[in-house]
Amino acid sequence: MSLPPLPKVHHPLLPLELVDKCVGSQIWIIMNNHKEFVGKLIGFDDYVNMVLEDVREIDPQEGETRMSKILLNGNNICMMVPGGDGKWVDG
Amino acid sequence: MSLPPLPKVHHPLLPLELVDKCVGSQIWIIMNNHKEFVGKLIGFDDYVNMVLEDVREIDPQEGETRMSKILLNGNNICMMVPGGDGKWVDG
Amino acid sequence: MSLPPLPKVHHPLLPLELVDKCVGSQIWIIMNNHKEFVGKLIGFDDYVNMVLEDVREIDPQEGETRMSKILLNGNNICMMVPGGDGKWVDG
Amino acid sequence: MSLPPLPKVHHPLLPLELVDKCVGSQIWIIMNNHKEFVGKLIGFDDYVNMVLEDVREIDPQEGETRMSKILLNGNNICMMVPGGDGKWVDG
Amino acid sequence: MSLPPLPKVHHPLLPLELVDKCVGSQIWIIMNNHKEFVGKLIGFDDYVNMVLEDVREIDPQEGETRMSKILLNGNNICMMVPGGDGKWVDG
Amino acid sequence: MSLPPLPKVHHPLLPLELVDKCVGSQIWIIMNNHKEFVGKLIGFDDYVNMVLEDVREIDPQEGETRMSKILLNGNNICMMVPGGDGKWVDG
Repeated sequence: MSLPPLPKVHHPLLPLELVDKCVGSQIWIIMNNHKEFVGKLIGFDDYVNMVLEDVREIDPQEGETRMSKILLNGNNICMMVPGGDGKWVDG
Repeated sequence: MSLPPLPKVHHPLLPLELVDKCVGSQIWIIMNNHKEFVGKLIGFDDYVNMVLEDVREIDPQEGETRMSKILLNGNNICMMVPGGDGKWVDG
Repeated sequence: MSLPPLPKVHHPLLPLELVDKCVGSQIWIIMNNHKEFVGKLIGFDDYVNMVLEDVREIDPQEGETRMSKILLNGNNICMMVPGGDGKWVDG
Repeated sequence: MSLPPLPKVHHPLLPLELVDKCVGSQIWIIMNNHKEFVGKLIGFDDYVNMVLEDVREIDPQEGETRMSKILLNGNNICMMVPGGDGKWVDG
Repeated sequence: MSLPPLPKVHHPLLPLELVDKCVGSQIWIIMNNHKEFVGKLIGFDDYVNMVLEDVREIDPQEGETRMSKILLNGNNICMMVPGGDGKWVDG
Repeated sequence: MSLPPLPKVHHPLLPLELVDKCVGSQIWIIMNNHKEFVGKLIGFDDYVNMVLEDVREIDPQEGETRMSKILLNGNNICMMVPGGDGKWVDG
């Protein structure tokens, strides 16, 4: 006996699912104190603490600087843009 | 046997109920560091972390900029306006 | 047998009791980032996230603006004044 | 039989014990965003959310203003001075 | 029978152990909002809320001021220096 | 019987694993309020509170200053750079 097709339901995307999909890819992070980083996400935990690799800090005044690996405190992350490269796309 | 009509009671609206009703709709978010976003809410969790789609960042000084998808840290969200479009309605 | 009268005891007012008493009434909220709102409290949760209705944002520089419903993040609320209307009462 | 005298031990004062001793008395609160209040503590909870009565806000630029009752978010309290009146005592 | 000598192992110092060792001694605290205090630590809890006695607030612009006892919110403590007196030691 | 070789899998690096690997080594910490420290990590806990030894505070305006031991509140840490020395490496 087969089940009838399910109705098309709203399937919300959980925040941690989105973060999980980004592991191994480049993300763009803006911290609460306005620091901005672009790098490859290589790990995270339930507090959304994140480890990034091949990181550029983007500072409009001091230009770009690079670090091989950093830990960001999830507490103080303001937003994450998957695939972001620190440049806004005008609509 | 029918029950007598219930007296009109105060029924408080829980914050997460309000957020849940907004999934699939446009919301306006103001972060604690004064960043503002308008976009479609596509998911959230118990910490009120939110995933938005078709996002505009509203910056009075730099104008509007767009991103396809972002994660906002619930910790650092100041307020959410359901259906808001980043423009205040004067009363 | 009747119990002897209880001695007059100190009965502290729990913060959430105070919030609960305000449901349905007007409150004044000052956020940690100095934004101020006056509105009717229609719900809250254990994190003191709050839903307000018929809200005015009070901005000394930009004047008053109105929204029909907002969610405020309890984390970032600095203080709540029951019955407050955004105008200080000099003693 | 009597117990021998206890050696004089270090007895640390737990933060919540200090707050509990202040219930019913005047305290001075400095918030994280630099707002300052003096009032009678009438209740608190484990998150050190506090309810104050007969409150003066102390603002060096705008002078003193008064409110009958307020709730302060423990999260955003920076410090509490028992018995403080908003004036520093020079040593 | 005696146990063989243990190999010299890395023994990390837990943050709360360090705080516990400081009870009864002078510490230097810098808050997240840049306020600075020197005083004797007389108690703390798991949230690293702290009670200080014989406290000096150090304000480069307004000079030193004194309080007999204060509670500091662990949330908003940025750093603690054991034995610190608010003056940096140049290396 | 030998197991077949495992396929090369994505192995995320958990944030606390990264911190744990840094114990005994020099790290660079940037706090949420923009203070910066370089020192040897000698301990941490689940809240990423950290104890550093042989610490230099790096202040672009006041130069370097030294402390023998400090506790940093994990809450207010913005980022950690393993092996960092407070000088950015341009890419």
